[in-house]
Amino acid sequence: MSLVVMKFGGTSVGNVERIRNVAQRCARVRREGHDVVVIVSAMAGETNRLLARAHEFGEIPDPREMDALAATGEQVTAALTALALQQQGVAARSLLGHQVRILTDDAFTKARIRAIDDTRITEVTRQGAVCVVAGFQGVDDAGNITTLGRGGSDTSAVAIAAAIDADVCEIYTDVDGVYTTDPNVSPAARKIPRITYEEMLELASLGAKVLQIRSVEIAMKYGVPIHVRSSFSDAEGTIVTSEDKFSRADMEAMTIAGVAYDKNEAKLTLTGVEDMPGVVAKVFGALAEKHVSVDMIIQNVATGGAGLTDVTFTVTKADLARAKAVINDVGPKVGMKGLLVDDQVVKVSIVGLGMRSHAGIAAKMFQLLAAEGINIQAISTSEIKVSCLMAAKYTELAVRALHTGFGLDAATVKEESA
Amino acid sequence: MSLVVMKFGGTSVGNVERIRNVAQRCARVRREGHDVVVIVSAMAGETNRLLARAHEFGEIPDPREMDALAATGEQVTAALTALALQQQGVAARSLLGHQVRILTDDAFTKARIRAIDDTRITEVTRQGAVCVVAGFQGVDDAGNITTLGRGGSDTSAVAIAAAIDADVCEIYTDVDGVYTTDPNVSPAARKIPRITYEEMLELASLGAKVLQIRSVEIAMKYGVPIHVRSSFSDAEGTIVTSEDKFSRADMEAMTIAGVAYDKNEAKLTLTGVEDMPGVVAKVFGALAEKHVSVDMIIQNVATGGAGLTDVTFTVTKADLARAKAVINDVGPKVGMKGLLVDDQVVKVSIVGLGMRSHAGIAAKMFQLLAAEGINIQAISTSEIKVSCLMAAKYTELAVRALHTGFGLDAATVKEESA
Repeated sequence: MSLVVMKFGGTSVGNVERIRNVAQRCARVRREGHDVVVIVSAMAGETNRLLARAHEFGEIPDPREMDALAATGEQVTAALTALALQQQGVAARSLLGHQVRILTDDAFTKARIRAIDDTRITEVTRQGAVCVVAGFQGVDDAGNITTLGRGGSDTSAVAIAAAIDADVCEIYTDVDGVYTTDPNVSPAARKIPRITYEEMLELASLGAKVLQIRSVEIAMKYGVPIHVRSSFSDAEGTIVTSEDKFSRADMEAMTIAGVAYDKNEAKLTLTGVEDMPGVVAKVFGALAEKHVSVDMIIQNVATGGAGLTDVTFTVTKADLARAKAVINDVGPKVGMKGLLVDDQVVKVSIVGLGMRSHAGIAAKMFQLLAAEGINIQAISTSEIKVSCLMAAKYTELAVRALHTGFGLDAATVKEESA
Repeated sequence: MSLVVMKFGGTSVGNVERIRNVAQRCARVRREGHDVVVIVSAMAGETNRLLARAHEFGEIPDPREMDALAATGEQVTAALTALALQQQGVAARSLLGHQVRILTDDAFTKARIRAIDDTRITEVTRQGAVCVVAGFQGVDDAGNITTLGRGGSDTSAVAIAAAIDADVCEIYTDVDGVYTTDPNVSPAARKIPRITYEEMLELASLGAKVLQIRSVEIAMKYGVPIHVRSSFSDAEGTIVTSEDKFSRADMEAMTIAGVAYDKNEAKLTLTGVEDMPGVVAKVFGALAEKHVSVDMIIQNVATGGAGLTDVTFTVTKADLARAKAVINDVGPKVGMKGLLVDDQVVKVSIVGLGMRSHAGIAAKMFQLLAAEGINIQAISTSEIKVSCLMAAKYTELAVRALHTGFGLDAATVKEESA
């Protein structure tokens, strides 16, 4: 008998029929003798519907009232899910953020969890009932309702799993796991049976939008195993866990876990700036001051002679206009000759713990790309990731070449089971 | 400067445009320098929509979950109303039942208020903000969300007005006040400018469905003046207050306040039962055991001779089937010869404090009905009310005759102002 947290997203509880299916699945787990805590999101579309109403009263409505409003979405699903479980003959009880006491800071619409009281959840499960908790919401010190921001229900689920020391946190979604790459780009993509928190963090931040990144951080911090799986099938999904849960053989077999891509970047190049100490600091200091997040940074070798150099960096497309304004302001002060902007770029990354023990992974990546005639515009590396910036038109070609080249294609893998 | 509670029902906040109107009205009162506490219901239709969803999961869903579900309706309106006020440039803050702390018992779906903490509401108004409170909801000792039952927002409003010692509790609705009778029945009906709590209680319980009866009881207990008025006009409505707020001249002028009717009753007559002590007790004891509420009771003079009598009583139509079952069970034990059932009846009542000081009001009522050839089937009286049961077909005729006969018609009243 174990203690299982099961989290269902908006699509999984999108209508009465789906809530019934969710209840059936939870009831089955409960009948197998496990203690069950269910975390639910608002029904698909509900949060947007609520927020649209709020926006009728101003462009930037008071975030405190937005949260009181938005939190009703999960409250409705939690009550309906409890009722659906009861209809299956399973005792169930819903709890809201302030009832559990999911204590957060008071940063309305993007609050962070400070502490979770496990008393009431444990009380409900001890009575043999399934505890259904409204995700996404908490309460601040003053008793105001807060929400955790988009995708916050994943965070609720993992944080609750950590607080009650659950054996596993199952995240039910509309995909059946984490894939080696985007199946829309490479039909050879395959489901990853097991992956480490670190790899998942790199994949998530690179655009494989399966799990909210904060939830993975919390899971890693508290050692909560996550099982990402489909709410529409019984197939095993992807287990996200710590490295020490992998056998030596597992580790040896793995080189890279997946290939990710991110089209949401834009590249800026300042040409002919002075190649002197402090110049780069001035540029990036000015960007930071205006809250522009910079991703990749490359300082090229001076090309124009006379102690001049080019500086290239990338920002998200959303920050591009702000970044341009900053550079047009600060550029002349460092002798900038020109500013080149390119938003037709893609960042393709390979991620895997294996690259720590396998030499030459980065070199192999460059070779594979070169063999396709793809020009690399910028490179950045971390311990378990290599990212290359290139023209956006190469996205599919690059992803497929790397996926095949690193032996990730479904057909090329002999032993797939974990 | 005074402290005003303003309560808006579901129709008054039925859509975004109407919420905007409500906010405008509240903003105006606030700008006049008053402290304002607003109580809102769920948007019209919302509660039914939520409960219909719950009923997808069983005929008698768990009342605890029903309350958690239903309470979201008022939560949405409260947040939207606060946002609408802010858009008007008026500081505003919403509070839910558990945030105010409207403490109730744990009778889910029909909870009763035990205590209201005035701390947070007062804190908000002291900061110069309008406090918008979600009506209809409370919280029990264990922190569960409760609701007060249909029309409970009136009760929330009056109870909060009592707790914060408000100068007036304004109940905004889709009618512009309390009328001397149903305007649909008598076009001569006119708005009553002032009425006592006692009269309002009798009128409300008799079917003039303007104010929830419990809210009037609370207002009377704590001496909270209620102003029932239209949310769609600025006209004065009806002030419900205590007798001592009326001048001697007011009291002298009044004979009766209004004429009410109730078609929701059914009459049962047990014929030929034994005219012995204990027989009636047996019949009504059995009805009480099955939770059948009996309204009027008449024991006729024995007609069949030989110590036999008839017993007549009325119940609500909803209870009729249950009442028949009880009588068919207990009747034979008291020698009942037959059971006559008539659900084509109406109870017409006149209500007024004036009848305490004016003799012969009941006699005048019987004369007015007799003059129209209306046969009275049963009579019941209280200190400030006389009710007559008659065939339902006489409803309009009786109401109009009494309304005219007691000088209530608009044209016959010379000084209408309060």
